Amino acid sequence: MPKKKGINVGVIGFGTVGTGTVKILRENAGILSRRLGFPVTLKRVVDKDLKTNRGVKLPKGMLTSKVDAVLEDPEIDIVVELIGGIRPAKDFILRAIKNGKHVVTANKALLAEKGNEIFAAAQRQGVRLGLEASVAGGIPIIKVIREGLVANWILSVYGIINGTANYILTKMTDEGAEFSNVLKEAQRLGYAEADPTFDVEGVDSAHKLAILASLAFGIPLSYEKVYCEGITKITPMDIEFAGELGYKIKLLAIAKATGGGVELRVHPTMLPVDRLISKVDGVFNAVYVEGDAVGETLYYGRGAGDMPTGSAIVADIADIARGIVAGADRPAPAFGESSLKIRKIEDISSMYYFRFSALDRPGVLSKISGILGKNNISIASVIQKGRRVGEAVPLVVLTHMARERDIRRAVKQIDSLPVVADRAFFIRVEGTEG
Amino acid sequence: MPKKKGINVGVIGFGTVGTGTVKILRENAGILSRRLGFPVTLKRVVDKDLKTNRGVKLPKGMLTSKVDAVLEDPEIDIVVELIGGIRPAKDFILRAIKNGKHVVTANKALLAEKGNEIFAAAQRQGVRLGLEASVAGGIPIIKVIREGLVANWILSVYGIINGTANYILTKMTDEGAEFSNVLKEAQRLGYAEADPTFDVEGVDSAHKLAILASLAFGIPLSYEKVYCEGITKITPMDIEFAGELGYKIKLLAIAKATGGGVELRVHPTMLPVDRLISKVDGVFNAVYVEGDAVGETLYYGRGAGDMPTGSAIVADIADIARGIVAGADRPAPAFGESSLKIRKIEDISSMYYFRFSALDRPGVLSKISGILGKNNISIASVIQKGRRVGEAVPLVVLTHMARERDIRRAVKQIDSLPVVADRAFFIRVEGTEG
Repeated sequence: MPKKKGINVGVIGFGTVGTGTVKILRENAGILSRRLGFPVTLKRVVDKDLKTNRGVKLPKGMLTSKVDAVLEDPEIDIVVELIGGIRPAKDFILRAIKNGKHVVTANKALLAEKGNEIFAAAQRQGVRLGLEASVAGGIPIIKVIREGLVANWILSVYGIINGTANYILTKMTDEGAEFSNVLKEAQRLGYAEADPTFDVEGVDSAHKLAILASLAFGIPLSYEKVYCEGITKITPMDIEFAGELGYKIKLLAIAKATGGGVELRVHPTMLPVDRLISKVDGVFNAVYVEGDAVGETLYYGRGAGDMPTGSAIVADIADIARGIVAGADRPAPAFGESSLKIRKIEDISSMYYFRFSALDRPGVLSKISGILGKNNISIASVIQKGRRVGEAVPLVVLTHMARERDIRRAVKQIDSLPVVADRAFFIRVEGTEG
Repeated sequence: MPKKKGINVGVIGFGTVGTGTVKILRENAGILSRRLGFPVTLKRVVDKDLKTNRGVKLPKGMLTSKVDAVLEDPEIDIVVELIGGIRPAKDFILRAIKNGKHVVTANKALLAEKGNEIFAAAQRQGVRLGLEASVAGGIPIIKVIREGLVANWILSVYGIINGTANYILTKMTDEGAEFSNVLKEAQRLGYAEADPTFDVEGVDSAHKLAILASLAFGIPLSYEKVYCEGITKITPMDIEFAGELGYKIKLLAIAKATGGGVELRVHPTMLPVDRLISKVDGVFNAVYVEGDAVGETLYYGRGAGDMPTGSAIVADIADIARGIVAGADRPAPAFGESSLKIRKIEDISSMYYFRFSALDRPGVLSKISGILGKNNISIASVIQKGRRVGEAVPLVVLTHMARERDIRRAVKQIDSLPVVADRAFFIRVEGTEG
């Protein structure tokens, strides 16, 4: 017999995602209950701001500023945390867990940084924690990895998981525009925040990557070990050179099982133009998941926004609700069952794009290529443009597979050459060799 | 307390997908049991052929030719049907259900044609039926629709769900080759069967579409109402004209909620080259799912093969096993909760590509466009190539949105014109207007 005939939900945080979630829970309540076979009822919404009109009508008394109205209400089965940030979100979640409530959250920063503690608490208490909305908005990527591809050893997970950075790179590519100008425009349009650091420096992607990698490889959340490099140094010139070589530049989050460990890295990446992911433009997200049995799969959709993210929140609510009503007495085991080590960035191998700013003098290319050769880096192609004898011109080199450690040593040596006008800049290249 | 400490599986059918499934169940048993928290054990494999070496070692006695060794073994919890076809697969599945066993199958023809009866039996008996492997191979598209996007009204599901047809169209596009030649090559390479009817005439896509639509729209399986048109009439000339107009030709399976009903159709479709799905080439599958909250999402991967399809089979086994061990006493409700009508092909609206073979005489275009106009069909662009006065030359017309009923009437009228040398050929166009 079902233990319960319906499920009550309390939402904490009535901002963008909170509003989307509330809209879906109310407007799609009918279809949801038909699909589940029982009703899911929004009982309470908590926010400090009781006044702003969010475009959704709530029954009188449903909106409150008192978080205890959710955390301490024994009738509420599932608590949805949508306030973001570490504090007080973490305390609210831990209190909900302690009170035996299941939790759903979109809070990637909190999960990436404090997730191990939160998951342990949920595990001890025997409640479930839904986190689908924390990565890639409405794309059910976490369900795919945990359930859809459960039969696979995951070999790699990588993709575009920050819409703001992708919007900026797409604009830079389409219009040949400078980073700073496109950023300003994105801020004006509301695609980038006033402080864009998390998005353009790769921090948000690194948060999400830590979550994906934890699920895919069964490792603890390891945000602090993610190598992270943003898009602020990419110039229209790099985008143009990349295009000439047959590549697009995307901010990629990459988790890859190699050499008996896992690579975790976020950085601008050159990708062959004919790969599907190279066509993923604007605010869209796309994630490749490669499994030993299934091969390569790709998942694409909106990575943010009230309704797409709300779609993921409500999917988690539905999953947990199904489990409660079916009387399932055992949540899925904690992930974190593997002992794979995170590899240092110096230990990865990749192809590399280099841009040097070198004086246009005889022998410069020979000096640079000599240093690359001595460091075991072999050259795939070279672009040298414009002739301005005695002045600095860009020199672009594409390498074959090389080790990052060698690359870094070579860069140091090249940067100290007197014929080099500016520090060398490099971009990792994926999706062609090895 | 868990009702069971482990789950036993019996596989019926040791062909391509059976072999992939068995390989995964044996080789990935460790990771699977770590993820689930309990073991899933392959107990028995049934096949008439006990001799062929499938490249996977089974313990002595595990392989048998007696189907009762699975169907009547009370220790087997989940029966996997992988023999394909209607008979005896249907009887085996119904017997398994009757014996209280959960069933997993990849049999899209059986599900599409007899699924309503099978689902009803499973529902009555309170057992679950896993069908992830029946559509799009390793892509977890059924889980995505049923669970990942459960919060959404689905607006449309459409995509490339037959790898053989996509392989042929890709080759025709890349090499300008004729259908019949590419088909022969595909047969030689094992990508197409000796009797390719199901793949090239769209029947296989229609089977899968019936399943997807049933889940997405909550309608009964309606294979017999799917409009179905294959790729055998596509010529290199059409592919070339499509390219000139900025389109690719793909065999698309389309399920769309429109006009208070659902369109269900499989036919060659022109798609703008810059859409992601236009880049899905060779044997790969890709499915768009559009939901009211999530917007447009896309799922891409291998649509067939031993290991990708095995990945989906084992994912279903894992899901059902989790439910059994957790003591969940209620399978998901049957879909089929909606009363949406299937629309007739005459009632759909689309853009259309026309190829006429008309005598190169003054006034021909005016006659044809006159008939189109009288039938409420407005022209978006025209290509007329080569001048051979008095001879038949191809005339290509791209329309704006028009009703299929009007299109068919116009075609009849145009075909009866004396200046028309051959019957008009048309291809529906998606992804641009409305």
